[in-house]
Amino acid sequence: MTSPNVKKSWAKLVIVISMIKEFGQDDPRRVIHSFKVGLALVLIYILHHFRPTFYGFGDNIIWAVLTVVIVLELSVGATLGKGFNRMLATGLAGGLGVASNKIATLCGDKGKVVMTSIFVFVIAERVTFMRFSPQLKARYDYGMIIFILTFCLISLSDETGNELLEIAQERLLTIIIGSCIAIMVCIFICPVWIGEDLHRKIAGNIEKLADFLEGFGDEYFNNSENTEAENDKQFLHRYKRVLSSKSMEESMAVLARWEPRHGQFRFRHPWKQYLKIGNLARLCAYKIEALSVYLNNPKTPYEFRSIIQELCTKISLESGKALKESSLMIKKMYKSSSPNSHVSNAKSAVESLKSLLRTNPWEGADNHFEIIPAATVASLLIDIVICVEKICEGVDELASLANFVPYELLHRGIVQPISDSDGSVHVVTVAE
Amino acid sequence: MTSPNVKKSWAKLVIVISMIKEFGQDDPRRVIHSFKVGLALVLIYILHHFRPTFYGFGDNIIWAVLTVVIVLELSVGATLGKGFNRMLATGLAGGLGVASNKIATLCGDKGKVVMTSIFVFVIAERVTFMRFSPQLKARYDYGMIIFILTFCLISLSDETGNELLEIAQERLLTIIIGSCIAIMVCIFICPVWIGEDLHRKIAGNIEKLADFLEGFGDEYFNNSENTEAENDKQFLHRYKRVLSSKSMEESMAVLARWEPRHGQFRFRHPWKQYLKIGNLARLCAYKIEALSVYLNNPKTPYEFRSIIQELCTKISLESGKALKESSLMIKKMYKSSSPNSHVSNAKSAVESLKSLLRTNPWEGADNHFEIIPAATVASLLIDIVICVEKICEGVDELASLANFVPYELLHRGIVQPISDSDGSVHVVTVAE
Repeated sequence: MTSPNVKKSWAKLVIVISMIKEFGQDDPRRVIHSFKVGLALVLIYILHHFRPTFYGFGDNIIWAVLTVVIVLELSVGATLGKGFNRMLATGLAGGLGVASNKIATLCGDKGKVVMTSIFVFVIAERVTFMRFSPQLKARYDYGMIIFILTFCLISLSDETGNELLEIAQERLLTIIIGSCIAIMVCIFICPVWIGEDLHRKIAGNIEKLADFLEGFGDEYFNNSENTEAENDKQFLHRYKRVLSSKSMEESMAVLARWEPRHGQFRFRHPWKQYLKIGNLARLCAYKIEALSVYLNNPKTPYEFRSIIQELCTKISLESGKALKESSLMIKKMYKSSSPNSHVSNAKSAVESLKSLLRTNPWEGADNHFEIIPAATVASLLIDIVICVEKICEGVDELASLANFVPYELLHRGIVQPISDSDGSVHVVTVAE
Repeated sequence: MTSPNVKKSWAKLVIVISMIKEFGQDDPRRVIHSFKVGLALVLIYILHHFRPTFYGFGDNIIWAVLTVVIVLELSVGATLGKGFNRMLATGLAGGLGVASNKIATLCGDKGKVVMTSIFVFVIAERVTFMRFSPQLKARYDYGMIIFILTFCLISLSDETGNELLEIAQERLLTIIIGSCIAIMVCIFICPVWIGEDLHRKIAGNIEKLADFLEGFGDEYFNNSENTEAENDKQFLHRYKRVLSSKSMEESMAVLARWEPRHGQFRFRHPWKQYLKIGNLARLCAYKIEALSVYLNNPKTPYEFRSIIQELCTKISLESGKALKESSLMIKKMYKSSSPNSHVSNAKSAVESLKSLLRTNPWEGADNHFEIIPAATVASLLIDIVICVEKICEGVDELASLANFVPYELLHRGIVQPISDSDGSVHVVTVAE
């Protein structure tokens, strides 16, 4: 017989385990990454055990372990950035440290203490200050910490002359070995490219806006009471995730710049253009946020709302379609003029709406207060079309900058589109 | 005579130096922080030089240096968080490492290799996986890296038994010394409290929204051509910085929770309430972003715009005043009902505006299209008042949660308001 306490704990454990399982299923790449870290460390251990002379410098194995644990990140971009930073900073700071140690040694015993203190202070102070610069921080923050660290370690060392030089060389070599193991494990075992993540994220953000716009018309002009459960209206809330995605997009773009050519992405893929499109999408999301209030606010009576129903629904639907096509253009990496034709449709609907409004369609309304909500919705939709047009222009620009393939060529079967379901690249070769 | 090249380089150098200077003047705390890092390192060097036996374990000085360089951050919260993480993780992982090493040793020579590989793999894999959990990542990410690191170093060590235990203890002690030096330098020399930064940032964000709202009425209803230079209208653009401040506020709140009592801030200051207010302020900023479009769009002719001028200007002005008073309440940390009275004024103006609109004030307009911009502005302003009311409620809640002092007591001179100009706390004791 088990006591109720044991049963309780058991139930709790089961919940925690199922939570962890779900969490891994959310993004299986996390599970794979965890395995990769374990594997890289075991690799170092085995190498060290069977060939203690492999590295040739005994204790320094800790630097290889340190390097792997810290350098190996989920994405290739982050791993390459950190590895590069670590190797370059260790090399530079090692050289400078050996040089400053030599100079300090020339100044006699007391002089050495003073000189070393001055060197350590000046370097640590200057580099720490440089870390605040936003441009340097984005790409080289980790390198600057490692620079201070290595310089201090070399300067503070009790060894001098050739011995010191040897230590510095050994340390650099272990760090290069550690970084290379981390980079190789990251690239060759199920790589996660952060550039692709950014690519998919921007396409996904545009799609979220499109979902709202495609559904808005029906939702706002629907006269019947809402019978659907809130669950079925998820599409009206997805755009909210676009509102606060700025800082994430920016850090992804910084990391993506470290990545080499892979799949459809060149080394100098126009990542900045993604940020530009992301910002335009956010401006559109702010407008949508203002518009969404009118789904719940008291609405203009249906008889007056219905006057603008057809045109407003058309504007909203065509804007949504334009965005969905643009999102697809990014996802599948092809050039197409179809978003522009939807934008033209939306713009001509805007002109028709303006003409309609010039004929005083609400003449019979009881008072102006009643028609204000409908008027605001019309006005916001007209603003949104301008935003949508800019997003489509941004995507067109991206298509030229990144040499996307024209849609017609895509269907002759010579390109390799990127799958949007998971992180891996499928090579699709469609025969005509 | 100097060659033109030398002159050119000299000019460039001067520009770079003046840029660095300006950059330091932007936030003098950066300069102070850089000095603190240099100082802490020199302190360790001097201790190590004059008392090589001070730490009692020779080479391990590198762990103290490593700790100081990595743990000493700009703000007290970040330094305490990292120091705490580092000490706890080293202690736990050290103990676990020694235990697993003992178990592995029991399994014979070959068994040891297999067991150690399994231990390293399982621990590294599990902890890396846990790092993806958002709750753990926010507060303990650094600790989890250090945990993997220390566990691997102890497990991979060639030493066994008592020697290993000694190494682990020494390492832990050096790390505690390093963390304590970093924490003391951070707290006792010109401390930067990130909680205060968050406090000021939230107050500043509300003020930025207030600036826009206070200026909007005049700007929109002004009939004359814009003669002022764009520079003078900075107040109309400041709110834009609120739009994308979410992730920064969140990370500040996480760090602020590490900080001990200081000045007016208790240990368990309601930091979460700041995030709530921040989110409400952002919702208001989205609406303002939608409203700001109408400053530049073609406007309703002045004769019809002027009909709602008085009430709309009042709504916007009173909303702005309510926000400004709320911002001041946060800044000076006092309770006051004055924001609520401004909110009431704004709400009664909204009611008057609604009544006005019910009398069909735009009857004589040529067509409905002309009056749509003015109608939209009125409608958005009505929405904004709801947002403003929620912000003021949030600030009231903060005032109760954080035990702000009633305004009347403040002026009897018994509290210490926080200065908003720089990072230091001024103790103001006003005699009656």
